[in-house]
Amino acid sequence: MSHLEQLIVSMVDVFEEYAGQEGKKNQISMDELKTLIDNEVSKPEFQKKIHAEDVTKAMDFLDKNHDGVVNFNEFSRCVATLARGYYKQKQGKGGKKGKGREEDEQEDQ
Amino acid sequence: MSHLEQLIVSMVDVFEEYAGQEGKKNQISMDELKTLIDNEVSKPEFQKKIHAEDVTKAMDFLDKNHDGVVNFNEFSRCVATLARGYYKQKQGKGGKKGKGREEDEQEDQ
Repeated sequence: MSHLEQLIVSMVDVFEEYAGQEGKKNQISMDELKTLIDNEVSKPEFQKKIHAEDVTKAMDFLDKNHDGVVNFNEFSRCVATLARGYYKQKQGKGGKKGKGREEDEQEDQ
Repeated sequence: MSHLEQLIVSMVDVFEEYAGQEGKKNQISMDELKTLIDNEVSKPEFQKKIHAEDVTKAMDFLDKNHDGVVNFNEFSRCVATLARGYYKQKQGKGGKKGKGREEDEQEDQ
């Protein structure tokens, strides 16, 4: 499997890993989201990789339509935003008003 | 590394794999994009996973600001859109006007 293909398949796998725990299999419930956050987002290594501000921005994508659950569209946007936060951090642009953050701001809408 | 963390790191790795081939390391040139498409998107297994319509929609995110290169923001959106296409296909919603595609259409904006 090609790298890009593997990436896409993994994104669906991670979503299904959490969405499949209880109730409907095509959405992440608030309990399942809490498990995801506890298992993943709140881990120190994760927090070192992505600035808190970018994690918060990514979490905003979750349940964007306020129906109380997270669908795959919302999850995929959250992952893309987390990856952007990580990439910025890697480029040395992470943090409050790091160099180059401004021109990324409007791109993140 | 947690699954979500691995996913995020892989997204940056795949981007850097192509962006790093020539010229500026933080953007994918049109030549590098062609290599990515030849190596990845045009492979039969890839095409089986994602409906052509969704691949086209995802490609639209690449070089959205028409500066002739693909930055990480554009790449991450393209990957998220490809993943949504794959997820729909997996859910049996892929294809022309498959069941449930309509309500996803506006979500993809």
